[in-house]
Amino acid sequence: MIYDFATGNTNPENFPADELAAAAADVIPKIVVELNRYPGKFGHLGLRKLMAQREFDREGVTLDPDQIILTHGSMQAITMVADALCQGDDPLIVMEEHCYPGSINAFRSMGIDMVGIPLDDKGMRVDLLGEALADLDRQGRKPRFIYTLATYQNPTGTVMPRERRLELIALARKYDCIVVEDNCYGDVHFEGEKPPALYALDDDPRHIYICSLSKVFAPGVRLGYLTAAPAMLEQILAKRHDAGPNTMAAAITEAYLKDRLWDHIETANEALKKKRDAMLATLAEHSGNLYSFSHPVGGLFIWLEMADDIDMDRLLVIAEERQVKFLAGGSFNVRGEKGPYLRLAFGFPPVEEIEAGVAKLAACIRDARRS
Amino acid sequence: MIYDFATGNTNPENFPADELAAAAADVIPKIVVELNRYPGKFGHLGLRKLMAQREFDREGVTLDPDQIILTHGSMQAITMVADALCQGDDPLIVMEEHCYPGSINAFRSMGIDMVGIPLDDKGMRVDLLGEALADLDRQGRKPRFIYTLATYQNPTGTVMPRERRLELIALARKYDCIVVEDNCYGDVHFEGEKPPALYALDDDPRHIYICSLSKVFAPGVRLGYLTAAPAMLEQILAKRHDAGPNTMAAAITEAYLKDRLWDHIETANEALKKKRDAMLATLAEHSGNLYSFSHPVGGLFIWLEMADDIDMDRLLVIAEERQVKFLAGGSFNVRGEKGPYLRLAFGFPPVEEIEAGVAKLAACIRDARRS
Repeated sequence: MIYDFATGNTNPENFPADELAAAAADVIPKIVVELNRYPGKFGHLGLRKLMAQREFDREGVTLDPDQIILTHGSMQAITMVADALCQGDDPLIVMEEHCYPGSINAFRSMGIDMVGIPLDDKGMRVDLLGEALADLDRQGRKPRFIYTLATYQNPTGTVMPRERRLELIALARKYDCIVVEDNCYGDVHFEGEKPPALYALDDDPRHIYICSLSKVFAPGVRLGYLTAAPAMLEQILAKRHDAGPNTMAAAITEAYLKDRLWDHIETANEALKKKRDAMLATLAEHSGNLYSFSHPVGGLFIWLEMADDIDMDRLLVIAEERQVKFLAGGSFNVRGEKGPYLRLAFGFPPVEEIEAGVAKLAACIRDARRS
Repeated sequence: MIYDFATGNTNPENFPADELAAAAADVIPKIVVELNRYPGKFGHLGLRKLMAQREFDREGVTLDPDQIILTHGSMQAITMVADALCQGDDPLIVMEEHCYPGSINAFRSMGIDMVGIPLDDKGMRVDLLGEALADLDRQGRKPRFIYTLATYQNPTGTVMPRERRLELIALARKYDCIVVEDNCYGDVHFEGEKPPALYALDDDPRHIYICSLSKVFAPGVRLGYLTAAPAMLEQILAKRHDAGPNTMAAAITEAYLKDRLWDHIETANEALKKKRDAMLATLAEHSGNLYSFSHPVGGLFIWLEMADDIDMDRLLVIAEERQVKFLAGGSFNVRGEKGPYLRLAFGFPPVEEIEAGVAKLAACIRDARRS
């Protein structure tokens, strides 16, 4: 038995297969002309309108659908933004020290230098961000942008409080720095208050906001989106060379979600919350003095810090032998530095597998103690 | 009335909407697990197998489906290849002097220097390719690759004969140069013999082959693919940062096409051939001594060369006023040079619009004569 907690997949168990199939059958005959045309740089209008509604419902901000461009997942949005903003010599960005490996690998591959800011239980430490920006300023190095997952940060699961968001925005203004906000987990929400998205607090016309349907619907539809003010949007679109986003996936997704977006998200989140709870309970049951772990109120991940006496290299060998999969801390570190961390994804496996697999992981950790 | 001959869209008239809707409704419940997972770097296996079969049927070459990666249209394949092969200082490629503007714009945006090789009625002039490669060699400049649309070249519609293909391959070998073959129009075939794809004639393990479903099925599904030998494929995949291709679009497309790929293509081509014939007949009827035009045996475009006494700048103004849309030659020139050319796309508009619009275009051209 393989226990796979490595990837941020979603929950197949209560997936609305029949409703989605019906929506697809209904909409395909209506989009024949659209399917036979290149989609343009913005993509399917219906889904852009629905995503404008989603943002209005969550943030109270009115977006023109023509300020929204659909992308091939949020990853395409991230690489387009980096491509648009990181031309020229020695591009540098500032971001959370632990972050999504997909973003880190893309930035690295694009030759972008990453300055990592440590996190605490409230997300990026804005005091240290201020110091880093001041340092860079003294060196005459200007970051192309600050990249942040302020809500349900990946991998730490932290949520940046409103006050800290305002401080981040003030620092960005002070140092004339663009903020790129990646809110792909923003609606995978289990409990408690949600602070506003940064873009709802920031009137800098260069602010860039990225969101996704991968986490609230399905990663296999490869649909994300990006919004920015017209001048910035134009700059980003100049780096779009894909002949446009996916009409078929967008039209089917909109046809299914349009009358039930929040119902769908609520149902999905309830099921995910049970999985999170099962993982938290199993982690607590077996923790001993082996590790501490995050208690995220949203997102798809739990972040573990190993006790000092755990040999991480040994743990990786043991876990691989026993077929328990997760991602080790080094994958998330902007400098590739190993650390006493690992990330568990709870969205995909059934509750019983979470319980059995986490118990097995705890045993692996115990057996990786330095004697 | 707007007459739009600008974009290489496909034919919505005989699109199999009901069959596609039925295929979607049938397959969606079967791919729930797959939809809830990230697709991986290769993408939906079923469509990769079908594309391997397509290549076998057309070229007689057996491809392992694990040598094929699905892409977001052929454009993503093109940009991934360019990204993988054009790192470092002053990247240079060699390609047809007139080419698809999407490719040209992407290469330009990526800072790639393009050396254009003139075409004749048999595609890229391989004699001039040899001279260009020899020149570059003397200058110590090594092209990262030769990019070619050897079959139904866009915009000229030319087909490179087998003998010339072999010469191109021999030149690539002589100058140790990678060949990137873009066969996106390869199956949009109306009559006559088709020479083999270059990859079927070339055993260089660095040869890269790109194809698409946009032209034989629909651009709105955004599905292309790329094949290369393992080492080259790995090098290209290192530049894939999109979290994988579209599972939903791939699964639905495969479900529809799997038992009728060639029937679908044959039906689509028959309808396109009628449109091409209507455009050719109308062009002939109104040609006077205004222009000459290509007679393509495949693809979606006719390429016009204006007579010496036509004022191109004036033509563009007149055509815009009268709402006849096409792309002017400058869009296709690797150096952005204007020329006495324009490209007409015949796939999307109905036959009556082709007849009325081309007649109107001929009148525009007549009125753009230098007095």
